Amino acid sequence: MITTVAFDADDTLWHNEHLFTVTQERFSELLRPYHDETWIKQRLNDTQIRNLKHFGYGIKGFALSMIETAIELSEGRMQGDEIQTIIDWSKEMLEAPIHLMPHVPDVIAELTRQGYRLMIITKGDLFDQESKVARSGLGDCFQAIEVVSEKDPATYARVLKTHGIAPGEFAMIGNSMKSDVLPVLALGGTAVHVPYETTWSHELVDERPAPTDRFAEFDDLAPLPAWLARHV
Amino acid sequence: MITTVAFDADDTLWHNEHLFTVTQERFSELLRPYHDETWIKQRLNDTQIRNLKHFGYGIKGFALSMIETAIELSEGRMQGDEIQTIIDWSKEMLEAPIHLMPHVPDVIAELTRQGYRLMIITKGDLFDQESKVARSGLGDCFQAIEVVSEKDPATYARVLKTHGIAPGEFAMIGNSMKSDVLPVLALGGTAVHVPYETTWSHELVDERPAPTDRFAEFDDLAPLPAWLARHV
Repeated sequence: MITTVAFDADDTLWHNEHLFTVTQERFSELLRPYHDETWIKQRLNDTQIRNLKHFGYGIKGFALSMIETAIELSEGRMQGDEIQTIIDWSKEMLEAPIHLMPHVPDVIAELTRQGYRLMIITKGDLFDQESKVARSGLGDCFQAIEVVSEKDPATYARVLKTHGIAPGEFAMIGNSMKSDVLPVLALGGTAVHVPYETTWSHELVDERPAPTDRFAEFDDLAPLPAWLARHV
Repeated sequence: MITTVAFDADDTLWHNEHLFTVTQERFSELLRPYHDETWIKQRLNDTQIRNLKHFGYGIKGFALSMIETAIELSEGRMQGDEIQTIIDWSKEMLEAPIHLMPHVPDVIAELTRQGYRLMIITKGDLFDQESKVARSGLGDCFQAIEVVSEKDPATYARVLKTHGIAPGEFAMIGNSMKSDVLPVLALGGTAVHVPYETTWSHELVDERPAPTDRFAEFDDLAPLPAWLARHV
């Protein structure tokens, strides 16, 4: 009997990855005088991965990684106003309008009507994620917003314990097989994968569970309420 | 009857502000060719306050504010390797050894022995704060670590509700009158102020409650267990 439905936020409830994609394009433009596009993107990605242990996930760490990559690839010739441009991009990203994914308001309203307890469980910068929840207009629909630094079984176990939820009562909905699906299935919970058009390579895994009564994969959120209802 | 004792983290359980102070000194050194020290520090402080709405609290936002101030005060003449130096400082800050405040291990052990539920409630970057809790060696003593974006009465009310704690059962211990004491007293909780030698001007308030059975002020944590015991 599922009582609690938790959603990932970025690229599950609203578009997010496109902000990074667009900013990476602008970053490539900025560094085009020094290197070709493929090399720039590869080095930026390498810097981000290397800096994850320092900065974790989120836009501020991404900005610092862009600045570091720009200095490195330009061999220190990057000008102050160009570095400032990168900082300004990060502020734009932090303030960007929220574009909800298809069917989000209807599905959230329907699940609320059916009496589920709704949560958000998301990685990233605490400050940025809370700001997005507020700007999405959906804040009041969720009984808890949990911003976590890693989405592994231990983290989900801790969140469930804090909120007094048994794994069998819990369903997680998200676009990342690695972060939203596999750790929840490992705990004995239910998970629904709603893939996004682009997923950061760091989040990709090969593993793909077979559909069962505890796992489904949908193109968008529309089938979710009926699937959960059948499931119960 | 107090059942739960929550601690602020930075400058309550361990030294933190000195990292910012030392880095600000290094930053002043770096910009000395362009301006005098007072002006540099004033402008850095202004940039930080202005950027709080974009970046929130924490080292990554501080790094971006330093870079922005450096570009501005040098009128764009700051070199790439100098900007990289600022990023490297932020990584050093994020990895700095944890120096516990006096009496912390003993007081935590004593409160655990007395059967209190212990928590950490702190502002800042989620990733950075969790890393510090892990590096402090105290992680296992706390039943919950709550990293929040603001410490106001609404935030404390939400945290208490999530954990099923009534305000009358709750004591908050911290170095900030504004963040740790006043909002908790406003909710009907108990608060203990343990001032730190330096507190960021943004955190200072003039208000100072009179000592009651719900509020005390100590130079360090040593008197806390006895005060809580008497209080009960």
